[in-house]
Amino acid sequence: MADAPTAEPKEAPEKDKAPPKEKMTLVVFSGELDKAIAAFIIATTGASMGMDVTMFFTFWGLNILKKNEGPAGGKGFFRKMMNRMNRGGPRRLKLSKFHMFGMGTGMMKQFMKENKVPSIDEFIEMAQEMGVKMMPCSTSCGVMGISDDLFRGGIGDQAGAAFFINEARESKVTLFI
Amino acid sequence: MADAPTAEPKEAPEKDKAPPKEKMTLVVFSGELDKAIAAFIIATTGASMGMDVTMFFTFWGLNILKKNEGPAGGKGFFRKMMNRMNRGGPRRLKLSKFHMFGMGTGMMKQFMKENKVPSIDEFIEMAQEMGVKMMPCSTSCGVMGISDDLFRGGIGDQAGAAFFINEARESKVTLFI
Amino acid sequence: MADAPTAEPKEAPEKDKAPPKEKMTLVVFSGELDKAIAAFIIATTGASMGMDVTMFFTFWGLNILKKNEGPAGGKGFFRKMMNRMNRGGPRRLKLSKFHMFGMGTGMMKQFMKENKVPSIDEFIEMAQEMGVKMMPCSTSCGVMGISDDLFRGGIGDQAGAAFFINEARESKVTLFI
Repeated sequence: MADAPTAEPKEAPEKDKAPPKEKMTLVVFSGELDKAIAAFIIATTGASMGMDVTMFFTFWGLNILKKNEGPAGGKGFFRKMMNRMNRGGPRRLKLSKFHMFGMGTGMMKQFMKENKVPSIDEFIEMAQEMGVKMMPCSTSCGVMGISDDLFRGGIGDQAGAAFFINEARESKVTLFI
Repeated sequence: MADAPTAEPKEAPEKDKAPPKEKMTLVVFSGELDKAIAAFIIATTGASMGMDVTMFFTFWGLNILKKNEGPAGGKGFFRKMMNRMNRGGPRRLKLSKFHMFGMGTGMMKQFMKENKVPSIDEFIEMAQEMGVKMMPCSTSCGVMGISDDLFRGGIGDQAGAAFFINEARESKVTLFI
Repeated sequence: MADAPTAEPKEAPEKDKAPPKEKMTLVVFSGELDKAIAAFIIATTGASMGMDVTMFFTFWGLNILKKNEGPAGGKGFFRKMMNRMNRGGPRRLKLSKFHMFGMGTGMMKQFMKENKVPSIDEFIEMAQEMGVKMMPCSTSCGVMGISDDLFRGGIGDQAGAAFFINEARESKVTLFI
C-alpha cells in the first residue's frame, strides 16, 4: 500500500498519481519543548508535501495535547499529585537542556518567534488545519489517569498500540520522538 | 527487498499468506522505565499482530536485560565502578522524569499494576513466549565490559550493528527508542 | 569500531544489482556523546554495507558538527550566551547519564579507546571518507543563530525538513536519534 509507489525504482513524485497518499507516523513520547518543535516541524512539513500524517502521543508527549488552562486532572490522590507536577499544556513545555528555571526556555521561545517558527499552540492549530491526525495513546491515558476533557479540542480519539503499528507498517516514514 | 511482499495492493493480514512475516525492529538505547515500557508495549503488540519482532539492546538499554540479582559485573576497576552505578535489572529501572528518589517511579509502577500493564519482568517473559528476539549489542557489551552471564536466561546472542541494519532494512517498522 | 568496517561478504545482495543503492537516513537531534556514538556506528556500518547514508543534524545534534576550536558563535547577546553554554565540538560532548563533572564521560572515552571504538572526531572523518552525507538543519541553525563557519570542513549545505522527508521516504531505514 504505502510501498506501492516505490515499486518503480524512479520514485516519481507521488502528486502525479492521485491515490493513495504516502503515510508518515510519529510517536511523540517526549514532552519537551525542543522535541515537540521537531515533531511538529516534521509533521507539518510532511503534510505540506502531501503526506497523510498521524501523530501518536504517548507518556510525557500527552502533555503537548493538554489544555493550557483548566485542572491538572487525574483520579485519586497519587494520580492527582503526578498530574499536578506533570501539568502539561503547550505553554508549560520546557527545553530538555538549559531550561535554567525558565530562562533558557524563554530564550528559545524568543529565538523561535524572531525566526518565524510557530509556537506549539500555533503548530497544533496549523497541523489540525492541514489534516494531521493527533491521537492520544489510550494505555498511557489509563495509566496516568488522564481523561479526554483534559485535552484541547479537535484531537482524535484515544487509540492503542495496535492502531499505531497498523499506521506505521503502511508508512514511508516512522519516527519515535 | 523488504517491499516485495507489499507489492500486492491488498495488504492482507500476513497470516493468510504464510511466508514471510512482516518484520519490526526496535533499537532500545534507553534504560529508563518509561521508555522500556513503551518498547515492550510496541514489541508485544507487534508480535500479537503476527509480526516478526527483534529488539536490539544497546548502551543503557542493556540494563533492561540484566538480572535483578547477582554481581554488577565489569572487568577492571573503572568498568566495575561504572557497572555498579549503572547496575540494571528490570526492577532497578527509573523514570526519565519525576523519579524523585524512587517515589515517582514507585507511583508509576503502582499505576501500571492497577491498569493491568505488566511489569518489565513480566513483559520480558511475555515477549520471550511470543517469540520476540532480544539481542544485546556486542559493541556496547565490549565497551562496558558486560559479559553474557550478567544477562537473564533466554536472551539471544550478542550481535553487532550490521545485524541490526540487516533486520531494519527488511522491516516495515523500525524505531530507535 | 567493531562492526563498522567489517563488511561481511555474505550480506551484499544490493551490490550485485548496481542501481539504486538502498538509503538510510538518520535525524541526529541529540548532542550527547552516547547517542552520537550510536548514530555514527549505525551510519558507518550502513555505509560499509553499501548503503547511501544521510545524517541530518538538528537542535543539540548540531553541536557534533561544530569545530572543537574557535568562537562559540551566535548573533546578539542572548544567542551568544546560549551558544557559549551550548558550545559543542566533538570533544565537548558529554554522556547523557553519569557525566559526573567529566569523570563518567572520561571513563567512557577510555573504554571506547580500549575497545578500538573511534572517537567522534575519528568517526566524522571515517563517515566523510565513506561518503556519508552530513547536513545541518537550516531551521535549527537559524533559531540558534549558528552560521556555517562554526562547523568543521566537509559538511554538507544546510537543508530543511522537506529535504529530510524526501530522503526518509526513499529510505529502507530511518531513525530519530
